[in-house]
Amino acid sequence: MPILPDSLRDRVVSDADVARTYGVDASPGASAPDQFTVVRARDRADVVEVLSYAVAHQVPVVPQGARTATTGAAVALEGGIVLNTEAINHVEIDPVERIAVVGPGVVNADLKSQLTAYGLAYPPDPASSASCTIGGNIATNAGGLCCVKYGVTADYVRGLEVVLPGGEVITTGRRTAKGVTGYDLTGLFVGSEGTIGVVTEAVLKLVPAPDPALTVLAVFDSLDATMKGVEALRGQRHTPSLLELLDGPSVAAIQAFGDYGFPADAGGLLLVQSDRIGHAHEDVLAYAEALTAAGATDVAVADDPKEADLLLQGRRALNPALEAKGPRMIEDVCVPVGRLDELVRAVHQIAERRGLEATSGGHAGDGNLHPCFFYDAQNPAQVDAAQAAFGEVVETAWALGGTLTGEHGVGTLKAAWLEGELGAAEVARQRSIKALFDPLGIMNPGRVFGLGTDRP
Amino acid sequence: MPILPDSLRDRVVSDADVARTYGVDASPGASAPDQFTVVRARDRADVVEVLSYAVAHQVPVVPQGARTATTGAAVALEGGIVLNTEAINHVEIDPVERIAVVGPGVVNADLKSQLTAYGLAYPPDPASSASCTIGGNIATNAGGLCCVKYGVTADYVRGLEVVLPGGEVITTGRRTAKGVTGYDLTGLFVGSEGTIGVVTEAVLKLVPAPDPALTVLAVFDSLDATMKGVEALRGQRHTPSLLELLDGPSVAAIQAFGDYGFPADAGGLLLVQSDRIGHAHEDVLAYAEALTAAGATDVAVADDPKEADLLLQGRRALNPALEAKGPRMIEDVCVPVGRLDELVRAVHQIAERRGLEATSGGHAGDGNLHPCFFYDAQNPAQVDAAQAAFGEVVETAWALGGTLTGEHGVGTLKAAWLEGELGAAEVARQRSIKALFDPLGIMNPGRVFGLGTDRP
Repeated sequence: MPILPDSLRDRVVSDADVARTYGVDASPGASAPDQFTVVRARDRADVVEVLSYAVAHQVPVVPQGARTATTGAAVALEGGIVLNTEAINHVEIDPVERIAVVGPGVVNADLKSQLTAYGLAYPPDPASSASCTIGGNIATNAGGLCCVKYGVTADYVRGLEVVLPGGEVITTGRRTAKGVTGYDLTGLFVGSEGTIGVVTEAVLKLVPAPDPALTVLAVFDSLDATMKGVEALRGQRHTPSLLELLDGPSVAAIQAFGDYGFPADAGGLLLVQSDRIGHAHEDVLAYAEALTAAGATDVAVADDPKEADLLLQGRRALNPALEAKGPRMIEDVCVPVGRLDELVRAVHQIAERRGLEATSGGHAGDGNLHPCFFYDAQNPAQVDAAQAAFGEVVETAWALGGTLTGEHGVGTLKAAWLEGELGAAEVARQRSIKALFDPLGIMNPGRVFGLGTDRP
Repeated sequence: MPILPDSLRDRVVSDADVARTYGVDASPGASAPDQFTVVRARDRADVVEVLSYAVAHQVPVVPQGARTATTGAAVALEGGIVLNTEAINHVEIDPVERIAVVGPGVVNADLKSQLTAYGLAYPPDPASSASCTIGGNIATNAGGLCCVKYGVTADYVRGLEVVLPGGEVITTGRRTAKGVTGYDLTGLFVGSEGTIGVVTEAVLKLVPAPDPALTVLAVFDSLDATMKGVEALRGQRHTPSLLELLDGPSVAAIQAFGDYGFPADAGGLLLVQSDRIGHAHEDVLAYAEALTAAGATDVAVADDPKEADLLLQGRRALNPALEAKGPRMIEDVCVPVGRLDELVRAVHQIAERRGLEATSGGHAGDGNLHPCFFYDAQNPAQVDAAQAAFGEVVETAWALGGTLTGEHGVGTLKAAWLEGELGAAEVARQRSIKALFDPLGIMNPGRVFGLGTDRP
């Protein structure tokens, strides 16, 4: 076990039971190692101290926020330090520059609600926004429900303060609206899953607050019909601010979890929103008309923001609802939006061929799907089948011009597929970039790039 | 002189007079070296061949587009190869994915006009859009007139194909709406000024076409009063799509160059646009009211897109108008928008103290100013004074929390200030990143990082 300096003593979680809760993230079957130390950093100086210690003693460090990661990227490592940054949660809002300067521990939804008073908004909106942190959002370049109109986390990170292994503090990017002095390393850290440094502050770009979103709920009698609805929305001049797909089994799981007003026997449904200033009502009516024309069997317009929000709560309940169903592999592939219907069909064919129960839901406006394959953990044949199905979905996504991860990251769950997507030469180049920042390989070793090769 | 392989012979510009025109960019006082070879690449294979040759023979390569750079980044190097990519200008528009896949030689305005038929737009809009290329825009992370609402080039580059020194072809980023597999190196290449590789294709994100912009022209009797107008617009819920500042001497220079309908004796003026779908007229009326309340002596609303465009032509004539005035140093500092008035005042104080004629114009909505100091090239004291003033503006920008370059880049013009902004440790880190991609230092040596140190 690492013997941390005295100055960090009151940052270390001393209760063994509490510490164990920091050992895992939300990835399927995650289990904590036997021995690890949890440090809850309160400020940059704490992070500097941990990363100095870790290099001096060659101890692996796992940076961690709210542990909502689904990939294993935030699971503790044996003999290592879990460096939790939830307590670094300062927020400074500058309405003139339209930026927020925040600590990595700020919860996504908390930042959003603090911005309301300024008439400003921070769009990135993972389904777990009520609990996930900005630091984790940056580590995975999180997307979520807003991306069809607003893009991903990277589109809103103007600059970072990062502590590197050894304790050096660097700043990347800029605070000004423009700036091109030297290389911009910001994009290198966004989505790097804790493998090159620890973000201690982020300069986030804000946008004028849109109107409260109104929602259309469109029900279809089959998944194929639902995908026709997605296609019909592409012709809209005013891009929906949200376009979410739930297949029949997803809807049934949500309704089994709680009554969110969905028809439990739907073949598929779409949730579509507009937040366009002064025009949200007009937009949702246009979307409703297009969805009806595309074959929806039932179309309901929630033209009151509270009612609209209730429907969204159903969507946000998807993850806990599926978790309640039992063990599952969660996919996160992303394909060109024009190929999403092929992906959706392939997922269900794969599940059928493998004899697995499956659900498909996701961000239909982005081509980002989260199929799940359920298995009985006591049945080795089912576990194997789920793993095989998981790999087949990745290969299907590649064949459609897509990627193995849209927004969850690679973590440990998908490290074996990294080279298949990037190629050996590119993986080698990325390893050498990591080595520039982390020559001893103490930062989240094994994650993204796989085990046993990125430590000297 | 490099003896290029036979296969490249018909890509080499053989006429010496024509070749000389490729020797310089638009930087002040740029002069071509005695000996250099110009290759006009037609495709990726040509670029691969040039960069293989250059590494094998340790010949410096200057990548080049339309040579509108104002920093010297595209000036030929003695004994080197100028690798011009203007002829790599393929365009493939995908309206479903809302992306354009383009060669680096595509002219910014040409891409824009091709998108009109699809109801789509590519926002980045340098003042030189009629001639500058997308490759050059990427090399400098160009901004321009749209950034107050739409951001900079980096915000629209989803992925790149890049040829590295030695000829290896890599792709960065993604084609899908989301994707987080491995490190995203795209941001490293955007703004790298040709120092690590040559972009041969870019995947650009498109947006739904806005309405044709309408313009407000507001005239003020002093520069201080003009800055009050800038401040007054900050309270608008609907961000202008353009907010340009011209000081009195800039306006006078434009009117001396051609009649663009500006009052030649203005203390300062603002051009403000809205392109908001269905609401441009309403917005410009609101801007006009705010500007009148802020003290504008004359406010004219061009509520016909043609008339609105004519006023913008006046703004776009600024650079040629100033060029016609004689030799000048062109600044490109960027400060927080809330500090712009301090920067504007400081520029005029510096000019006065140094006895120099100066102009100040720029992108007031971004805090990005382009002051110019004019000098008599035959008068060494004036040349020194202009250079000293130039440095003082950089230091003023730093003191205000800004950066030495908003959108033009560092090039050779500002290489001496790089370390002052980034610090020695960061410059060393960035050099080692360059060395990873370009170990022999053949890519645009001396640019950004200064001469004599980035080649082994």
